[in-house]
Amino acid sequence: MSDCDIFDLVVIGGGPGGYVAAIRCAQQGMKVACVDKALLPGGTCLREGCIPSKVLLESSGHFEQASEQLAQHGVIIEGPRLDLDRMMKRKEQTVHMLGKGVESLFRKHGVTFLHGEARLEKASTVSVLTQAGDSIRLEAPRVLLALGSRPQQVPQVPMDGERIVSSSEALSWSTVPEHLIIIGGGYIGLELGSVWKRLGSQVTVIEAENRLFSHMDEGLAQEAQRLFSRQGIEMILGQKVLGASNLGHGCRVDLADGRQVMGSHVLVAVGRCPRSDGADLSAMGVNLDDRGRVEVNEQFETSVPGVYAIGDLIAGPMLAHKAEEEAVVLARQWQGESVVVHHDRIPSVVYTHPELASVGLSEQALVASGRAFKKGVFHFRANGRARAAAKVDGWVKTLADQATDEILGVHIIGEGAGELIHQAATAMHFKATLADLANICHAHPTYAEAVRESALAADGRAIHA
Amino acid sequence: MSDCDIFDLVVIGGGPGGYVAAIRCAQQGMKVACVDKALLPGGTCLREGCIPSKVLLESSGHFEQASEQLAQHGVIIEGPRLDLDRMMKRKEQTVHMLGKGVESLFRKHGVTFLHGEARLEKASTVSVLTQAGDSIRLEAPRVLLALGSRPQQVPQVPMDGERIVSSSEALSWSTVPEHLIIIGGGYIGLELGSVWKRLGSQVTVIEAENRLFSHMDEGLAQEAQRLFSRQGIEMILGQKVLGASNLGHGCRVDLADGRQVMGSHVLVAVGRCPRSDGADLSAMGVNLDDRGRVEVNEQFETSVPGVYAIGDLIAGPMLAHKAEEEAVVLARQWQGESVVVHHDRIPSVVYTHPELASVGLSEQALVASGRAFKKGVFHFRANGRARAAAKVDGWVKTLADQATDEILGVHIIGEGAGELIHQAATAMHFKATLADLANICHAHPTYAEAVRESALAADGRAIHA
Repeated sequence: MSDCDIFDLVVIGGGPGGYVAAIRCAQQGMKVACVDKALLPGGTCLREGCIPSKVLLESSGHFEQASEQLAQHGVIIEGPRLDLDRMMKRKEQTVHMLGKGVESLFRKHGVTFLHGEARLEKASTVSVLTQAGDSIRLEAPRVLLALGSRPQQVPQVPMDGERIVSSSEALSWSTVPEHLIIIGGGYIGLELGSVWKRLGSQVTVIEAENRLFSHMDEGLAQEAQRLFSRQGIEMILGQKVLGASNLGHGCRVDLADGRQVMGSHVLVAVGRCPRSDGADLSAMGVNLDDRGRVEVNEQFETSVPGVYAIGDLIAGPMLAHKAEEEAVVLARQWQGESVVVHHDRIPSVVYTHPELASVGLSEQALVASGRAFKKGVFHFRANGRARAAAKVDGWVKTLADQATDEILGVHIIGEGAGELIHQAATAMHFKATLADLANICHAHPTYAEAVRESALAADGRAIHA
Repeated sequence: MSDCDIFDLVVIGGGPGGYVAAIRCAQQGMKVACVDKALLPGGTCLREGCIPSKVLLESSGHFEQASEQLAQHGVIIEGPRLDLDRMMKRKEQTVHMLGKGVESLFRKHGVTFLHGEARLEKASTVSVLTQAGDSIRLEAPRVLLALGSRPQQVPQVPMDGERIVSSSEALSWSTVPEHLIIIGGGYIGLELGSVWKRLGSQVTVIEAENRLFSHMDEGLAQEAQRLFSRQGIEMILGQKVLGASNLGHGCRVDLADGRQVMGSHVLVAVGRCPRSDGADLSAMGVNLDDRGRVEVNEQFETSVPGVYAIGDLIAGPMLAHKAEEEAVVLARQWQGESVVVHHDRIPSVVYTHPELASVGLSEQALVASGRAFKKGVFHFRANGRARAAAKVDGWVKTLADQATDEILGVHIIGEGAGELIHQAATAMHFKATLADLANICHAHPTYAEAVRESALAADGRAIHA
């Protein structure tokens, strides 16, 4: 590589937004470079987000199942004993393998990957300081910012990386914390809380609002809260945290009502904030909104012409697949297609046990809007496959316009909810009605039958209820 | 009940076809009676088909997982030891609970359930010989035959109910057979073969055709064969069975090529045949086709006016949900709706590990038809969730019309295939194109992403391949 290389597109950030944009644009014939400060592409999602958490959720789920659920199946064991080292090793191997996978996809598609610190020098120029200390200048008519996000800090709870930590550290502990206090009742808190609870920690979740998962359907969150409580996760809702201290042998968290919660470790999981302070963006005149997110128009272009942004850096839910969706839509727009991201049909999943998954409007949003709607709920306890598998918790809720029958939202809590939601997302892509869903032949016995039954239930026609 | 009761509909048979028809028609305001020779409704599906097999597949799956797959997750156990009694007890409890469930649905919907032998006396008259020995006559302008099917016998392999058995007995053994020989490489044989293999049996499957699952996509069946072989299931394909004998201490199966296969038990699983010899149907003039199935028109009416038939008794795949679908469509037709069963969109699932699931046309059917089509395949080994869960076997194949891009078939082998297939069935309900599927936002990381990627792959646009 010479000291100034010319590309069609330079992507800053190799996470799911950045790498998908790079690959898709390369497929469309563009010459693409992607810069990331990590050795392998993949970003937060791969290194300290979605993937490692799912590995630990899967493995800790096996541990819990071995402890508590095998006997009913006639499977008699002694143990289980936890080999946390081995569990963590599988996590690291999976992360490494998937990172190498993205790297090889880059090679296959001819995307140039650069490991280094990128800086936006001017609209069409990115300078990269490589790990080796070299400085490289990349020129491209289009620069895509996909810098992602980092864990949100809470000023009154200074993280020390040991006992008071972010999700990054909580994915890598080498011993099981005795009592984990989690500040934040969102998906990160409850997924990691589930992992450590299963592995033996006492877990206390503290949430400022009166409910979990503030962005999801309220009934779904309430049912989740009930089931998590039954699993032994303690919850303190509607309480602000005033401060927290590492006492050396443990931690203390001070609540607004004067209570103190004592634990061994504190996980701060109150959300994430965009990395808009990176890459000299503001110096370059890239406008931010009042929450520090990069402002873009419908074409994902920032206030600096030729500079684009997607993913956690801009407005919208901070989800890997939202970034991927924006990446693909942006690439398609650059091909001349007239497409947009349908933010109302982005599914969200919480990978606890049972899983939670939603697409479309929540029931409380419909109530607030005043729109007349109907609702069908079907419980997995009346579903043959759930019974056969002894996984009967949860239900499917479908919401539809009262007059047109069009599906407006689907909310699922139960086994495999995160997969089932895609049937609903597909139906909503076609502006399906509940009658459509009810008229699709479903294999028996499957969990998916509960989706159909919930659609039937909205009109009082469920067969198995 | 008097000695002659008058209904709007009498249903003979309380399986998934019969009981769904009864409930749906009752919802529509009809006065319905349902007769079954068993104490509780539910039929073959519930008592000795779908449900008990899924219970045993789930439980035996846990046994196998405990034996072989927990260690990689860092879950260290001693054992497992099999408590087959307990496993079977859960099966019986589940079957009983679901049977009671259908009974209570009947009560809720005002369906009269009669436990006894039904006989079609004339078009509008059904006589029932109850267990108590009483004879009851039911009158109704409409009689629905939903008698279902029984295991197909093989003349040269006489079943003795002990060592040479049908699926009914193979769901209830109280000890693990040492070496189970299965005649028939369809879903019943492979599901039950999987159960007993996992629990410790040596398993040999003998199939007359050169492939497994003759009604499914050939590539899917080949991949399944490869994976089952890896699991240690022996397969002898393309071999007719000439005879089998119970030798007292074991069994011998004679193959057409002169070989003899010795085992402890033989399961005959070559399919099912309609119970069209029951209920005096032929004496009443109900026409059968050359395969012994009751002939019906598009309105499910038999050659005897006012007498209808659905489910395994008539043509089409012998699947519980095909019977349910016919039940609902029939009920809707009786309400004046102009609806038919879309036989081309009935999904089929094999609940082995991994699962197989299909909807629409197979690749070989498309090749045979001469229609120009395109194909996308995406392997779960490149899917983040499959990697996180260490369940990477299998793939998704999507087939679409070359010119219009309309999806014609989707075939999945892999974790949760039986659930994922419903996204495809939903898409096909709307005559979706691959581009539609590719443009639906999928949550990350999910197995469902592989469905989207396979759609992209058909146009050489998969991101992760």
